[in-house]
Amino acid sequence: MSIYAAMSRDELLQEYQSVKARFDAGKAKNLKLNMARGKPAKAQLDLATELLTTVSTKEDCIVDGVDARNYGELCGLKCAREYWAEILDCKSENIFIGGTASLNIMFDVISRAYTHGLLHSERPWCKEEKVKFLCPSPGYDRHFRITEFFGAELITVPMNDEGPDMDVVESLVKDPQVKGIWCVPKYSNPSGIIYSDATVRRFANLKPAAPDFVIMWDNAYCIHEFEGEYIPFPDIISLCEEAGKPDMVIEFASTSKVTFAGGGFSAMASSAANIAYFVKLFGVQTISHDKINQLRHVRYLKDKAHTIEHMKKHAAIMAPKFRAVSEALECQIRPCGFAQWNNPKGGYFVSLNTMPGTAKRALALCKEAGVEMTPAGATYPYGLDPQDSNIRIAPSLPPVEELQEAMDIFCTCLKLAALEKLLEV
Amino acid sequence: MSIYAAMSRDELLQEYQSVKARFDAGKAKNLKLNMARGKPAKAQLDLATELLTTVSTKEDCIVDGVDARNYGELCGLKCAREYWAEILDCKSENIFIGGTASLNIMFDVISRAYTHGLLHSERPWCKEEKVKFLCPSPGYDRHFRITEFFGAELITVPMNDEGPDMDVVESLVKDPQVKGIWCVPKYSNPSGIIYSDATVRRFANLKPAAPDFVIMWDNAYCIHEFEGEYIPFPDIISLCEEAGKPDMVIEFASTSKVTFAGGGFSAMASSAANIAYFVKLFGVQTISHDKINQLRHVRYLKDKAHTIEHMKKHAAIMAPKFRAVSEALECQIRPCGFAQWNNPKGGYFVSLNTMPGTAKRALALCKEAGVEMTPAGATYPYGLDPQDSNIRIAPSLPPVEELQEAMDIFCTCLKLAALEKLLEV
Repeated sequence: MSIYAAMSRDELLQEYQSVKARFDAGKAKNLKLNMARGKPAKAQLDLATELLTTVSTKEDCIVDGVDARNYGELCGLKCAREYWAEILDCKSENIFIGGTASLNIMFDVISRAYTHGLLHSERPWCKEEKVKFLCPSPGYDRHFRITEFFGAELITVPMNDEGPDMDVVESLVKDPQVKGIWCVPKYSNPSGIIYSDATVRRFANLKPAAPDFVIMWDNAYCIHEFEGEYIPFPDIISLCEEAGKPDMVIEFASTSKVTFAGGGFSAMASSAANIAYFVKLFGVQTISHDKINQLRHVRYLKDKAHTIEHMKKHAAIMAPKFRAVSEALECQIRPCGFAQWNNPKGGYFVSLNTMPGTAKRALALCKEAGVEMTPAGATYPYGLDPQDSNIRIAPSLPPVEELQEAMDIFCTCLKLAALEKLLEV
Repeated sequence: MSIYAAMSRDELLQEYQSVKARFDAGKAKNLKLNMARGKPAKAQLDLATELLTTVSTKEDCIVDGVDARNYGELCGLKCAREYWAEILDCKSENIFIGGTASLNIMFDVISRAYTHGLLHSERPWCKEEKVKFLCPSPGYDRHFRITEFFGAELITVPMNDEGPDMDVVESLVKDPQVKGIWCVPKYSNPSGIIYSDATVRRFANLKPAAPDFVIMWDNAYCIHEFEGEYIPFPDIISLCEEAGKPDMVIEFASTSKVTFAGGGFSAMASSAANIAYFVKLFGVQTISHDKINQLRHVRYLKDKAHTIEHMKKHAAIMAPKFRAVSEALECQIRPCGFAQWNNPKGGYFVSLNTMPGTAKRALALCKEAGVEMTPAGATYPYGLDPQDSNIRIAPSLPPVEELQEAMDIFCTCLKLAALEKLLEV
């Protein structure tokens, strides 16, 4: 095998025959494998079994004089706010506890921005002539979809190794119609990079034209190292405060990938003024979120140190999967020279750029061979990757052996799509 | 004591002195009692302690091939949908399972109506020149607040013993700006009445001018008898279907007052077409609700028959409290002849109409004496009771002895406010 770009047509044809045969053989196995979503594996869910029994008696339900079973405490239990404050390195008055999913709080924030406006909005966003939202890409499709749902124009911002291209961001926020930006600052979805300190500082020091510009700081993978030790990360909330823009950022996090993806608990962190503003709005929709589940989590996860210890058990399950992805790509794709990818040390994804114009085709081939992947384009606004090149690999769900099979087929499909393109077949 | 209306000024003055002395004595006790909200008592929460341990092992988390701990099943677990279908007497495909609070699903429905429209909307409600919403009153303040929050004009509809005045409703829905109505059809909040079969049938046969008119059918107390046997109630969904308007109604319910007020699980029921429409919208905000909590509930509550048995334990706690309210009112207020109230057999409230123009004053006096009540006016749109007469009594939270103390003060305050009014002091 050698670099496709350097091959003659005859050599490419020969390679095509060989790759095609391998594809057909893979397809004949009638596999049904899934690398589409960042779903934790069963072995990871099993790690948190004790969570189920940390609140078992009626006495267990009382904490700090509050009965977790009854209505009340819209902001969340004191101990739950303190727990998240320690994890996110902010103060407990900066914390609002949500339900099982942080995505739902993000949706509610944007939804309320549209119908009622944010703290510094001159009017609800639905009354603006146009709202634009910055989408560092490749990024998370569910983020982009929320702002698309409310009719915002999504603007792609390129990502580099230190985070979103801040020259571009600083230039775009001069437009008063630009109302915010989506960020996954640590182990970014899908590129896996950690925003550099310089990037974080430039975010805190943004001078947007819109008074209600909001940084949607989804710190989904804040403690999700699977290789090496926990890496501390700057607290964006105090940085924004120091920069004189305390209300510009809202941070989100959850235990979906710490305990149970379908039954964790989530948090929003922001300035005390923002929290007070949202409590007023959120009080219309609910009396309180599930405090028993909050209590269960705090009793089980205890504190930051204990949670980071717990995350090492996840790491032991995740690391071999990411190694399997990396090894397959190194072995099968590196020699062909048409694709680049990252090797993250945390988070849930590998981001791969294949030969431009072949990502969709490669994933269609995967599907044909029984391997489901995140749809090509999903990592760009409107699901449209202008290069048709980026693919998000989500290796968490399948066991390693299945993953190896799936990666084998995936690599074959990448090559087949590239060869089809080069040969114009 | 005798009927105030028949007393001379001297007799009224004498009564005033005596009632005032009783008020001062009550106030001197420095009590802190609460009859403000329909919060279950600790003894009721204790009834469901076993719920905490019905899902305790990793094996417990798997049901019908689904791992309740992971992402997925936006509509809810199959068994959870079947559970609610049996309770509400509809089909499981009519059911969407939400989070802990049905109020949040109601909010989301109205919120999405505003930003995106309902299934048959010609445009999102925010693009309508005006939206009007019918509020049978006295009614539930949190319902009214949701539609007020989105800028709807709230229109009061009088309540009678069979439900909302349907002559008024049928007339108002001829206005195409009237987009919906709030209903608590069984043990109505606060009047405690059950909509008659004729009322329910007239609802199903409404012919509103607005194609997207929605009946918000909050069946919050569907199995909440505290006196007598469970009373079956017609299924509004099939009635609307028979009447050729299958998408006109959305029903809501939850276990907030069956298991834990802060950790129950909720359901929305509607036509399959409506459910499909909302699943599309709700899929933007969340991947799935807490399925472990759904499973916990289904394992604990089992089915309708078992749930109704469980509700009898609530009844044993609730009935003496409602008797205490009724006895205090009969003994202290009935002879004075200036107030009327209901004696419900289910639900969470007693609705009392005191002398017009004295409700606010009576509750201010209550507060002064350490008894917190639902604010006067709360049962009317915008918190404005045109008669300043209706008061909602919520006797569930305090133990019977405290409740008797609170009712003694409450009755004294009702009388004092009435006497002040009659004497113009």
